[in-house]
Amino acid sequence: MTSQLHPFGVFCAALTPIHADLSPNQGAFVDHCRNLIAEGCTGVAMLGTTGEANSFSVAERKSLLEAALAGGISPHQLLPGTGVAAITDTVELTRHALATGVSTVVMLPPFYYKGVTDDGLFAAYAETIERIGDDRLRVVLYHIPQMSAVPIPLPVIERLRRRFPTTVVGIKDSSGDINNMLAMIERFPGFAVLTGADPLMLELLGKGGAGAITATTNIAAKDLAFVFRHFNDAGRAAEVDAAQARVVAARARVSRFAQMASLKALVAEKTGDEGWLRMRPPLMPLTQEERATLLADRALAA
Amino acid sequence: MTSQLHPFGVFCAALTPIHADLSPNQGAFVDHCRNLIAEGCTGVAMLGTTGEANSFSVAERKSLLEAALAGGISPHQLLPGTGVAAITDTVELTRHALATGVSTVVMLPPFYYKGVTDDGLFAAYAETIERIGDDRLRVVLYHIPQMSAVPIPLPVIERLRRRFPTTVVGIKDSSGDINNMLAMIERFPGFAVLTGADPLMLELLGKGGAGAITATTNIAAKDLAFVFRHFNDAGRAAEVDAAQARVVAARARVSRFAQMASLKALVAEKTGDEGWLRMRPPLMPLTQEERATLLADRALAA
Repeated sequence: MTSQLHPFGVFCAALTPIHADLSPNQGAFVDHCRNLIAEGCTGVAMLGTTGEANSFSVAERKSLLEAALAGGISPHQLLPGTGVAAITDTVELTRHALATGVSTVVMLPPFYYKGVTDDGLFAAYAETIERIGDDRLRVVLYHIPQMSAVPIPLPVIERLRRRFPTTVVGIKDSSGDINNMLAMIERFPGFAVLTGADPLMLELLGKGGAGAITATTNIAAKDLAFVFRHFNDAGRAAEVDAAQARVVAARARVSRFAQMASLKALVAEKTGDEGWLRMRPPLMPLTQEERATLLADRALAA
Repeated sequence: MTSQLHPFGVFCAALTPIHADLSPNQGAFVDHCRNLIAEGCTGVAMLGTTGEANSFSVAERKSLLEAALAGGISPHQLLPGTGVAAITDTVELTRHALATGVSTVVMLPPFYYKGVTDDGLFAAYAETIERIGDDRLRVVLYHIPQMSAVPIPLPVIERLRRRFPTTVVGIKDSSGDINNMLAMIERFPGFAVLTGADPLMLELLGKGGAGAITATTNIAAKDLAFVFRHFNDAGRAAEVDAAQARVVAARARVSRFAQMASLKALVAEKTGDEGWLRMRPPLMPLTQEERATLLADRALAA
């Protein structure tokens, strides 16, 4: 399966394991990335919402990207998040990614100020891209209004596509609103629309979408990757349906309690490394009781 | 008038002027701070929401604080904002403030993740304060749910006060909800409750509040300072009422269009420096038409 869209595939919104001192555990992170690739992920969207990116400083983020590359993950397999509240920091993080050989980044809008105008949102992205000033750059916009509280409206995307047609290549839409995703596919030919909600990937692919960047992939990479590879293969429809059902079940399983903490608990169980349970405040691990309930929930295990 | 509360007074949530390259204009900022003090402000709460703080990098913020001090503003007159999305950065900014001689900071909660638990919010503040590990530190919590989208509930404040009784000294409440402010005054004796809404300061002072940290102070410092000094002086009640009326009018004047851009337009007019109009994206200056309407609105001029 090939596509003119970029990025195109199943990308894991990777968790970030941390040490007892709350600093990123680079070794465990690299191992996790390798496993995700081995299980069939097209690549790793590191340092997104699920990766607790905005709980880390610019220096911590740069260092983790360098560790992933030093650990053998190809720059073409990495989609680091680089969008932060201050456009100067977004520029710094993105330039750093480009300097390491990574060309495609996932970019949140500045997320402190709410109710910003379309002009202001456009200006923030345009100023950032112009400051970076690098033709290699490929930007995936990041629409996650329930967390950023700064939605990216279609008219802003249209203006960005017109001004930066080879740079603003796609969007991660974590709104869960399939109609918004389909509207972008229809309105912006060649624009890569990736869902942040695992269960929607199958439908989206059938309608011209570019894949998924999702959190559940941390525990269900094989199934997501299978759905992605074979969604259009009539001969394997039953297998695709079964894999899709497991994806839906896995997502339901980690949605009972706090999702990110639940994912970390499941990776901790899989790896046997309880260090995976840790989260940097303000996020918190599951309580012992929640964790026990989650782990006992074998009926929904992927 | 004296009080055991700290901080206590009228603090300006100071605007940050910027150069054409969008970097902070330190010279114009220092001049503005001096004017605010000369007009009667107790101090300057720099690098808050109104100061576009979260649109600047850690290095830009440190540099602006150093410029204010080098410009002759006393460390005891400055309440810099130091709370950002990553607790490691909050620690770095706060330690820097302490190293310059500033002891009291205004601290937003980590503001990227929404719907965090009370435990998580408490842990974020506690971890931050413990990492800073400096007995000189005085923290003013910053409750501005309409912008941060992370409210600070009273049970969290209670736990922080119990754990850090000499450190967590007050709160800037920008919610505009007088009942929340009065509830904190009643529940937490000795806790400095400062309103972020100018018109509420008069009522709050009469009920044991500690003053105000507000945006309108950028253009109405004299009147706010007058209300603060004489709110309890029966012989000057008419003057206080007149000053309060002008404060309310000034706030209404800058609330017709985007507030921060309106304040910058009025400071630009007062100083004759059109550079004051600039804002860093995603915030934008007023349109020419909005600005003309604002400036023509002399009936409401303070």
